[in-house]
Amino acid sequence: MSLSAKPLRLSTTQPDFEAQFTARLHWSAEQDDAIEQRVKDILADVRTRGDAAVLEYTARFDGLAAASMAELELTAAELKAAFDSLPAEQRGALQQAAARIRRYHEWQKTQGGETATYRDEDGTLLGQKVTPLDRVGIYVPGGKAAYPSSVLMNAIPAHVAGVGEIIMVVPTPKGEKNPLVLAAAHVAGVSRAFTLGGAQAIGALAYGTQTVPKVDKITGPGNAYVASAKKHVFGTVGIDMIAGPSEILVLADGSTPPEWVAMDLFSQAEHDELAQSILLCPDAAYIDAVQREIDRLLPTLPRAEIIAKSLNGRGALIHTRSMEEACDISNRIAPEHLEVSSRDPHQWEPLLRHAGAIFLGAYTSESLGDYCAGPNHVLPTSGTARFSGPLSVYDFQKRTSLIEVSEAGAQQLGRIASVLAHGEGLQAHARAAEMRLR
Amino acid sequence: MSLSAKPLRLSTTQPDFEAQFTARLHWSAEQDDAIEQRVKDILADVRTRGDAAVLEYTARFDGLAAASMAELELTAAELKAAFDSLPAEQRGALQQAAARIRRYHEWQKTQGGETATYRDEDGTLLGQKVTPLDRVGIYVPGGKAAYPSSVLMNAIPAHVAGVGEIIMVVPTPKGEKNPLVLAAAHVAGVSRAFTLGGAQAIGALAYGTQTVPKVDKITGPGNAYVASAKKHVFGTVGIDMIAGPSEILVLADGSTPPEWVAMDLFSQAEHDELAQSILLCPDAAYIDAVQREIDRLLPTLPRAEIIAKSLNGRGALIHTRSMEEACDISNRIAPEHLEVSSRDPHQWEPLLRHAGAIFLGAYTSESLGDYCAGPNHVLPTSGTARFSGPLSVYDFQKRTSLIEVSEAGAQQLGRIASVLAHGEGLQAHARAAEMRLR
Repeated sequence: MSLSAKPLRLSTTQPDFEAQFTARLHWSAEQDDAIEQRVKDILADVRTRGDAAVLEYTARFDGLAAASMAELELTAAELKAAFDSLPAEQRGALQQAAARIRRYHEWQKTQGGETATYRDEDGTLLGQKVTPLDRVGIYVPGGKAAYPSSVLMNAIPAHVAGVGEIIMVVPTPKGEKNPLVLAAAHVAGVSRAFTLGGAQAIGALAYGTQTVPKVDKITGPGNAYVASAKKHVFGTVGIDMIAGPSEILVLADGSTPPEWVAMDLFSQAEHDELAQSILLCPDAAYIDAVQREIDRLLPTLPRAEIIAKSLNGRGALIHTRSMEEACDISNRIAPEHLEVSSRDPHQWEPLLRHAGAIFLGAYTSESLGDYCAGPNHVLPTSGTARFSGPLSVYDFQKRTSLIEVSEAGAQQLGRIASVLAHGEGLQAHARAAEMRLR
Repeated sequence: MSLSAKPLRLSTTQPDFEAQFTARLHWSAEQDDAIEQRVKDILADVRTRGDAAVLEYTARFDGLAAASMAELELTAAELKAAFDSLPAEQRGALQQAAARIRRYHEWQKTQGGETATYRDEDGTLLGQKVTPLDRVGIYVPGGKAAYPSSVLMNAIPAHVAGVGEIIMVVPTPKGEKNPLVLAAAHVAGVSRAFTLGGAQAIGALAYGTQTVPKVDKITGPGNAYVASAKKHVFGTVGIDMIAGPSEILVLADGSTPPEWVAMDLFSQAEHDELAQSILLCPDAAYIDAVQREIDRLLPTLPRAEIIAKSLNGRGALIHTRSMEEACDISNRIAPEHLEVSSRDPHQWEPLLRHAGAIFLGAYTSESLGDYCAGPNHVLPTSGTARFSGPLSVYDFQKRTSLIEVSEAGAQQLGRIASVLAHGEGLQAHARAAEMRLR
């Protein structure tokens, strides 16, 4: 079979651009009611019956029959053995990536991730105390999309934040374990790990079972069942975000070798048929060159079939009037990954308001960020970069306001509070303030 | 009718303490399936029919018949007129409270709320860009619990963050407008305001209608319909948190006048029959004294009936073995408001891990924090302080990772990324990194 990948070719000057562009972007995160009902039932069952329910669903959905939960726990020794069994090159790469990710998140912690206070002129102390969460759960997908890098990207920020206990769950369909995932858990400092997946794993973490400890927050991507379950338990525990298909947007001025851009588009498309790769460029000849590289390179890739489906179904090569217009369109998309493949990326960066991560300059391929540049690769998808950001050390901490009003301060503040409390009809609030007046 | 308020009296030494304590804390945030279904229907209808649906639901649920959406918009002139019509004392109190809240959130913005980057030894630039949201929606409850202070606490952090447009919605049942709420919107710099409430208001903000602009995030408390609607639209837009009944926990060493503590317990209980007020104290005689003040002061308060129901149904006075034990119990509760009513609050503060806000020392009544100390009064309830914190300037910003890998950096990082990408079976990722190798 000869494959071909022809992303939709658009120009912002064509009369139906808006309609075509909107249709291509469309992706619906709508919940499937049937999935939602099944997830609710599974969660309720896990909440009521605990381990027994978890064991049953694991046997049914993962084809993994275990007599007890103990069989589903991965010991620290097993994680270490997985690490030790890897080729030296992989061990080194995991450790180097972990070191860079750790260093970035340690820096991030210094940017607002630490307790700070000040005193005003009345001697009143105000500020925020920052403390790590006690215990978090990390969901790691199993099967065909088992990514050790996701273990690092979830567990290391939790570790840097100072989380007391990091519980990893990873489904192992038919008992098949991914040694790189286990090794990454060892490198990243996971406290306990269970071979559990799906809504039953989310339920076990959110409510706790006889064996799985209840956590305070659950992070990590998963399939539609996992996403629905996370949304359902939100409030009982914290969650990070609901992930949609992955996306890359390349903003190119034509100065980068077109084969680099073609491969960067592929690297997103190879994730998943629903993944979205878009090129924005003011140079039509360059777009042609990228398409030629797509044609040339596609057959050389093992995942060519997925890439072709993704690019044909959701990809786009968009000719813009200018780089400025390309930046405007990028802001409308609010992409997860945004490459600025330009000789002068700092000219365009200030114009880019909404993105999960911005990769500046030709050498910054998204894949370097995915694995080891340091910043987190868990990023907002489907336009949610309009209101949210990367997974971070802050996701594994929480803030508590600190207020210490001096006697002098209470005289000032008490009068204001009293007036406003009476205005709201809350007299006990007012009296509590008035009692502190001299 | 003679009212009495007897919070449950417990001692940590009594044999059934755990059972009694757990039962008293119990509050279920479980969704009501009937409410959920109605909310889903309303949201779907608002999404499809826009203004027409919003007008219908507003007529039906708020008894407010309007011929067009224009009638439901509060103009800037109307907000200003409401402010101008207030007594000077209220105008002054609103402005002073706003100034203090603004100042605190401006300080907060300097704690991680600004773009920052660094370069590593290879010249690779890493960091995070912080930008405000474009447009947010603020839900302000109407009717009996219409709080102008909540307008300040939601709108000012958004304003300080630099949000482009702040859209307020507030239900006005039967058209009754609260002048203090309108005045607060004027003081806080709300961009547009609509007299809308319930799930229909959340739907209008999340999806946009012909008249109401679509926002990026919705914050603010509301009833069960509003909470359910916010949870439902989460993902389409950002939301702040799902609020449960309000709570105060007072940790007392017996050094504060007992009438102050009694009034502080009242000030939470007067909100709502489901509100929870708890005292933890190692001094049994002091607890007796607080109960005597409760008995003495209760009849003097206009909201005595609500206070009595709240304290009788959900309140507790708990005698602990020590202040240390009181701190442990406080951490289990993770209260929204935590008063450390002690001569030496800084002795205990380091032991307190989970709380929305900590009020240190006898002069720091919760009510001062509610109105004008400066930090936000929108705080995590129902134990969610285990994983979340106060509403903040950060809720109205988002972060974007910045990565610029130098040519030298790409040589280092490319090798690591290539090994890991091959390990994950993502060859296009590997090739994209390898192409950048010299």
